[in-house]
Amino acid sequence: MKALQWNGAVLQVNDVAVPERNRQEALLRIIRAGICNTDLEILRGYHQFHGTLGHEFVGIVEDSEDRANIGQRVVCDINCACHACPTCASGNPHHCPNRVTLGINGKDGAFAEFLTVPVRNLVSLPESLPLDVAVFAEPVAAALEILEQVPCQSGDAVAVVGDGKLGLLIAMCLAHNGLDVHLIGHHPERLAVLESYPARFYSSPPYRKFALVVEATGHDSGFCTALALTAPRGTLVLKSTYAHGFIFNPAPLVVNEITLLGSRCGPMDKAVALLESGKIRSEKLIAKSFPLGDAAAAIDYAKRKGVLKVLIDFA
Amino acid sequence: MKALQWNGAVLQVNDVAVPERNRQEALLRIIRAGICNTDLEILRGYHQFHGTLGHEFVGIVEDSEDRANIGQRVVCDINCACHACPTCASGNPHHCPNRVTLGINGKDGAFAEFLTVPVRNLVSLPESLPLDVAVFAEPVAAALEILEQVPCQSGDAVAVVGDGKLGLLIAMCLAHNGLDVHLIGHHPERLAVLESYPARFYSSPPYRKFALVVEATGHDSGFCTALALTAPRGTLVLKSTYAHGFIFNPAPLVVNEITLLGSRCGPMDKAVALLESGKIRSEKLIAKSFPLGDAAAAIDYAKRKGVLKVLIDFA
Repeated sequence: MKALQWNGAVLQVNDVAVPERNRQEALLRIIRAGICNTDLEILRGYHQFHGTLGHEFVGIVEDSEDRANIGQRVVCDINCACHACPTCASGNPHHCPNRVTLGINGKDGAFAEFLTVPVRNLVSLPESLPLDVAVFAEPVAAALEILEQVPCQSGDAVAVVGDGKLGLLIAMCLAHNGLDVHLIGHHPERLAVLESYPARFYSSPPYRKFALVVEATGHDSGFCTALALTAPRGTLVLKSTYAHGFIFNPAPLVVNEITLLGSRCGPMDKAVALLESGKIRSEKLIAKSFPLGDAAAAIDYAKRKGVLKVLIDFA
Repeated sequence: MKALQWNGAVLQVNDVAVPERNRQEALLRIIRAGICNTDLEILRGYHQFHGTLGHEFVGIVEDSEDRANIGQRVVCDINCACHACPTCASGNPHHCPNRVTLGINGKDGAFAEFLTVPVRNLVSLPESLPLDVAVFAEPVAAALEILEQVPCQSGDAVAVVGDGKLGLLIAMCLAHNGLDVHLIGHHPERLAVLESYPARFYSSPPYRKFALVVEATGHDSGFCTALALTAPRGTLVLKSTYAHGFIFNPAPLVVNEITLLGSRCGPMDKAVALLESGKIRSEKLIAKSFPLGDAAAAIDYAKRKGVLKVLIDFA
């Protein structure tokens, strides 16, 4: 089968063997995948991951111990936990110290024709859910993780820093949940993506005014802006992953008693339910689709400034 | 009067006029003061403060609109808020955007014979409280701020990173409140300061094991150690102020969904009550006392590696 692989130096589509599932796994045939900034960060050295990239995808179960699964259209929690350690036993498998993560850490990802995944990680998709919507389940789950971590009420103001694909998706999810979204970025025209929601846009936002801020740029300048926007005793949620460090002085965080909150993967079942509601217009984020054979070119395209979500097609 | 002043280049004891109080202020005669690491950071450029240093002190009210105050022995909240803005109205004067802070930002501090302070910031001291205990009220309040911000239960484990004067004081306060204190540092003999409390000491602590960690070193290496100690979904409290930044990669914070919580000044009344209980053996932290005339030498002494609390005497 074809797989887009990174060996630390070269990114290319290779011909590799179809992976073999173990008894706890299903074999998926991938039918759509999305490129995430984390994929691009991996190419800059993040997590020193080598192998098949890709962790946003929709697949069809080709083979599974439970025959009833076969043929189902699914998305999948990308954290493959051991379900045997104390962390898993405490109900926290996303933080299992023995976990591998599809396409990021210790296990091949979804920019390939086939993929093995733990059966317990599968979430079935409703038939009505379009493929180009379902492929956003993983980043929507990551956006919803903010609401799992931070108690929010309808009408609460939130500043979302970054008008790229992740920032816009987060803005949609938070606006859908009744938050008063203030989008901070460089592309005022992107506000159209949020259409029916009463979101506001700033290129020069007011400092120290927001009790809740979400950083979704992945750039150190975005981090600095987000920290400066956060009100005293406010919360700054970090959604970006960064391959490299930057100069940081914690003094403003200490003086203003700010809470900096790391936030990663979220609930896939809730993401699918939200996407099924039709309220997240993720199709507006799609920039272009490429066939798997051109996946390296798809990555190059995704790296371009201003490009939103690039998909990989398996037709 | 004599005052230890910093002009951005030179630190020296100058002869200056006794300050004049306004109607909302009391004039204090300072009788004891302590040197904090923040004073040393100011000499490295922190907050670009120029003027009289000092924000840990005990004074006697020399003059006040309310004659009843005169002669009282007091400590003082160092944050002088406007009490007129929305932040103050919301009950948050420590974060008043118009505030000045004694000896740190916009107002002279306590390494001087006299000091003017807002009357509403005064906290009277019980007669029984020894001067060398009362002078720790400000850093004890800062330690107690942790418990104001983080819900803790008796028996909860906490790692305190830093066995300097602030780390030890925090360890005492948290241990007194029933927390299971793990002190991380380079001086195992310092554990003796915690005497009756069942605290443990590590120089090579276990990583990712603590749901609550307090950073009290003020060094970037201490920050890195503290971040590495924090369990997934745990909380890392930053108590240090830093004059300069350092290289920081937020990825471990994001991946492990850690909460980084800035923490500054705390409740002075609770600090005085705790010190009155006699359970905080702060006298064990005192390294040496210097007269005000030798305050520049006191600062030099406080800079020495391994030196704990240096006091200034006004006898």
